[in-house]
Amino acid sequence: MSSLLPPALQDVIDAFGLLPGVGPRTAERYAYYLIRQGDNDPKKLAGALAELTDGVGYCQKTFALVPSGQEVSDLYADPRRDKQVVAVVAEPFDLIAIEKTGQYNGTYHVLGGLVSPIDNIGPEQLHVAELIKRVDEDKVKEIILATNASVEGESTALYIRQQLGGRKVKITRLARGLPIGVDLEYADQITLSRALEGRQAI
Amino acid sequence: MSSLLPPALQDVIDAFGLLPGVGPRTAERYAYYLIRQGDNDPKKLAGALAELTDGVGYCQKTFALVPSGQEVSDLYADPRRDKQVVAVVAEPFDLIAIEKTGQYNGTYHVLGGLVSPIDNIGPEQLHVAELIKRVDEDKVKEIILATNASVEGESTALYIRQQLGGRKVKITRLARGLPIGVDLEYADQITLSRALEGRQAI
Repeated sequence: MSSLLPPALQDVIDAFGLLPGVGPRTAERYAYYLIRQGDNDPKKLAGALAELTDGVGYCQKTFALVPSGQEVSDLYADPRRDKQVVAVVAEPFDLIAIEKTGQYNGTYHVLGGLVSPIDNIGPEQLHVAELIKRVDEDKVKEIILATNASVEGESTALYIRQQLGGRKVKITRLARGLPIGVDLEYADQITLSRALEGRQAI
Repeated sequence: MSSLLPPALQDVIDAFGLLPGVGPRTAERYAYYLIRQGDNDPKKLAGALAELTDGVGYCQKTFALVPSGQEVSDLYADPRRDKQVVAVVAEPFDLIAIEKTGQYNGTYHVLGGLVSPIDNIGPEQLHVAELIKRVDEDKVKEIILATNASVEGESTALYIRQQLGGRKVKITRLARGLPIGVDLEYADQITLSRALEGRQAI
């Protein structure tokens, strides 16, 4: 059926189809929207995409995303950030979620994923060795395992704990419990079990 | 918060955010996926987008999408297609849906939208005058109104009927009724009412 569409349009639909969760219908919708916008929006997106891989690099310390050529993330370089506290996250955008709370004053370490045998991701593919190096170099006092409350999150946390071996560093992880604003009766049983286990004196 | 991200990444997220139904989180996911793919996928999408508006035009007869420089759609130029039967659709991709049935042998006419006061689309913005011209030039015998079964679809159909005035052309529209494979008990009442009204002898 592709011959029904102009090749230039089919190319865009195919390229959009590479994005995660974008099927042929969604790709068509995006492409047709851009055609209707005239020259402005597609060229803007094209230009931004052309600069993407050249303009983005990884922080050599924390593996957060940084502008190309910048060696270390601002969040690490900032002298007001406590380098002895490290929040370990799976992906670069996770640290933005934590930053948005405005409650965190330490630094970050991006693993670049989670241990997941199904997706063929072993612990050696993650930036764990670099984390251990930071623990020694920066005399890290606390590692906050800020990974997802999933099987992969748990096994990654376990692996990091093992790798840290006998080092005198406190390891914590984000509390599991009831999300704010969710009715008790609608909470799933695992969340509720964790909330019970982690109950705190008031 | 945008200062947390490299500008080249923020640009891509902003540009993806222009697409219909793409919020900040989805735009982030697309951008991050492309970063992880390395140079290949973003450059491919960038290249395809850069060619999009230059590579796609509109058929001067039917307003279907055609490769730039091509005056008339293949579906119209093809001598095997019956030019005296015209299926009128709202958007270019609608004709692909009809083409895929393999049951239709006539030609198409793309209106470029539907009458919709809420979206500020009046009938004069649609390619209705060009349709009337085709009726006269091609001696069209039947117009199949293949618009959505929505308020906008109905009022557009009504407007076209009015504009055709006293011309001796048969106007039909797609049957409304039960979708194939849907249980009667799950059909909505409006669909069921239409299916009753349109009941046929067997």
